[in-house]
Amino acid sequence: MHVLKKLHSVNEIINEAKEYIALPEVEEVQIRESLGRYAAEKIVSKLYLPPRPKSTVDGYAVKYEDVLAASASTPVLLKVKGSVRAGETPTFRLEHGEACWIETGAFLPEGANAVIPIENVLQRNSEISVFSSAAKYENVSLPGEEYKPGLVIVDRGWRITPVHLAALKLEGLTHIPTYKLDARILVTGDEFLRKVSPYPPFTQELVAGWLEEHGIKVREVSFLSDNVKEIYRWLKASDAYVTIIMGGTSMGKHDYSVKAIKQLYPEYLVHGVAIRPGKTACIAIKNERLYTTISGLPVAALSSLELLFKPLLRQAGLNLPEWPKVRGKLTRRVTVKAGLLGFVRVKAYRHSGELLVEPLMLGGSGALASLLEGNGYLVIPEDLEGYDVGEDVEVSLYRPLL
Amino acid sequence: MHVLKKLHSVNEIINEAKEYIALPEVEEVQIRESLGRYAAEKIVSKLYLPPRPKSTVDGYAVKYEDVLAASASTPVLLKVKGSVRAGETPTFRLEHGEACWIETGAFLPEGANAVIPIENVLQRNSEISVFSSAAKYENVSLPGEEYKPGLVIVDRGWRITPVHLAALKLEGLTHIPTYKLDARILVTGDEFLRKVSPYPPFTQELVAGWLEEHGIKVREVSFLSDNVKEIYRWLKASDAYVTIIMGGTSMGKHDYSVKAIKQLYPEYLVHGVAIRPGKTACIAIKNERLYTTISGLPVAALSSLELLFKPLLRQAGLNLPEWPKVRGKLTRRVTVKAGLLGFVRVKAYRHSGELLVEPLMLGGSGALASLLEGNGYLVIPEDLEGYDVGEDVEVSLYRPLL
Repeated sequence: MHVLKKLHSVNEIINEAKEYIALPEVEEVQIRESLGRYAAEKIVSKLYLPPRPKSTVDGYAVKYEDVLAASASTPVLLKVKGSVRAGETPTFRLEHGEACWIETGAFLPEGANAVIPIENVLQRNSEISVFSSAAKYENVSLPGEEYKPGLVIVDRGWRITPVHLAALKLEGLTHIPTYKLDARILVTGDEFLRKVSPYPPFTQELVAGWLEEHGIKVREVSFLSDNVKEIYRWLKASDAYVTIIMGGTSMGKHDYSVKAIKQLYPEYLVHGVAIRPGKTACIAIKNERLYTTISGLPVAALSSLELLFKPLLRQAGLNLPEWPKVRGKLTRRVTVKAGLLGFVRVKAYRHSGELLVEPLMLGGSGALASLLEGNGYLVIPEDLEGYDVGEDVEVSLYRPLL
Repeated sequence: MHVLKKLHSVNEIINEAKEYIALPEVEEVQIRESLGRYAAEKIVSKLYLPPRPKSTVDGYAVKYEDVLAASASTPVLLKVKGSVRAGETPTFRLEHGEACWIETGAFLPEGANAVIPIENVLQRNSEISVFSSAAKYENVSLPGEEYKPGLVIVDRGWRITPVHLAALKLEGLTHIPTYKLDARILVTGDEFLRKVSPYPPFTQELVAGWLEEHGIKVREVSFLSDNVKEIYRWLKASDAYVTIIMGGTSMGKHDYSVKAIKQLYPEYLVHGVAIRPGKTACIAIKNERLYTTISGLPVAALSSLELLFKPLLRQAGLNLPEWPKVRGKLTRRVTVKAGLLGFVRVKAYRHSGELLVEPLMLGGSGALASLLEGNGYLVIPEDLEGYDVGEDVEVSLYRPLL
């Protein structure tokens, strides 16, 4: 019977593992395919937007010196020279006494240095009356005002968002190097294969969904019985950056998956993590690839993913998103054994102007209902035994506030 | 020259449009494919978890009545009858004076009503010494404690998350009805096709990424010149739930895309929205499909997506996610013309214990740099002209806090 003698803290694991862990391989993908992936290279802007002075309104481009005296009662008359539409390159030059129709976003012709909005102008034939003055560059966007060289578009390990896609496209890029973050999941358990269990295994869907949500492509979900040799064979064939084995990690009689991982002779291995729930997790690194066991119980699985796996990938240099955090008042005391990092499911909700945080302690680490009913979690640090009722706590929200 | 005479408020548009808008078609997809999509049916749980009493620790199942007197100094001796592993269905019955080895998650045999953790037990041959008492059902999870019939797993229009996937899988479902939310995007502009512009169009990538991020599949991004007939032909062929035309919506001389949309004879059409930036947007509904024009300027495009398009789809019954919201202190005054809903890009950051909100007003509605540098936006309601420096404002964060 194998009993975990020592539980390792997350900080300790991350500190030890960082020597062995590395970023995944790099693959070039098309800009639009890169959404939600992690950039493998720093990309800095090179262009100016606008590339030359541009109008920010529909109106008439003028020389501001010409309309200094213009007002509602004393309009200034100007000759209309032509017009410029958005995207056109004006071919003429504005001289004193001249104006030209200009569209929002269109480039000013040479000589122009301000734009009078259409509301303040009356056109009759080829002449306009201007009813307002303008400061130099009024209603004009100057080169670089909207975008200029030297802006960091993405850096190594940043997750790519829609705004990044637009900037990469603007820079004329068609592809971008990203990290090839893929995962294989193995679900082990005689009970499922022998159909003893009345229900199918389900926690692997939570894990697969979590990975996909964080930009990690799940290439495979397989099922095997509790057989070290078979599990080892499956493990050995894995070429994914992340390999996850679920189930078979209890502290009970059969630690098949940990035994199988040990047979890989990993460069780094730790079994037993000071997190509750989720203490039976095992982390190993071999050839810069990550192997981990995760509980088949949904809350323990989520606890391992959030409190161990996510910080580990962030340590590797992948900027996995954090959930939004809010602070609220605890409605009930929560405790955890001292020395353990506590993962507490909660329901955060507004009640007469206050944000209340209700711990959902019902059931054990398998309590799927609490994940359906809740919207976040709070963490009890290792050096605390918990929080008292009424205390102000920070909650990570995986779903919007109720 | 077409000038928008009246700008319509978002509330007015949503109120009028709701008569014409409808939910998209329904399609069945595999559970794992449903992540990020919107459920088209309410699904309520039918099962109990655990299905029968289950141990929450590794230890020995007992009758609690047998160990009432047990303590560290006066252990109780029990005969070991057998063992139960997780997922097994125990075939024997526990009688008085008997115990059985039980694993975390394993079902209790008939007759057992408590579990003594392994730490409090010493086994020698087929006998154990129990060093602690237990209350009835101590370390036991009772049926339904973790999951029970009647829980709402998903409801119509809910976005499907990893936790939902796990519950759907548990219920034995292989497929789930979801809404077929797809989009086609057309980018119009002579300047891009005639290669007058020094840069390629790029805002469509922001829009496409935004749609994908919100679970709307972008099926096509096409490019056409500013030609009403061609745009109309492309529009007419669209069978997507959402059809978006970008560019060509200025209040200037060429409203090609609005003209093309009008030729569809939509049941509902509005042009000119009281939002700044983004007032030139047009929304139309025909045969329960949505047609909209969005500015080619990135900030105006994001403003339309967040303040007009998202509430419209939420009105239709699709529970599009809201960004997390935080409150902070404004570092600079922001204003908008009265009567307009103001979309203000901001950078929210912590500074000596305070959350500060810095408006990024640099540049116009094209200022891509401000979207790269910022992490959120605030909204100025129609009945306000703005917020003063130092005021407490609410920010929607599209990226984590800095």
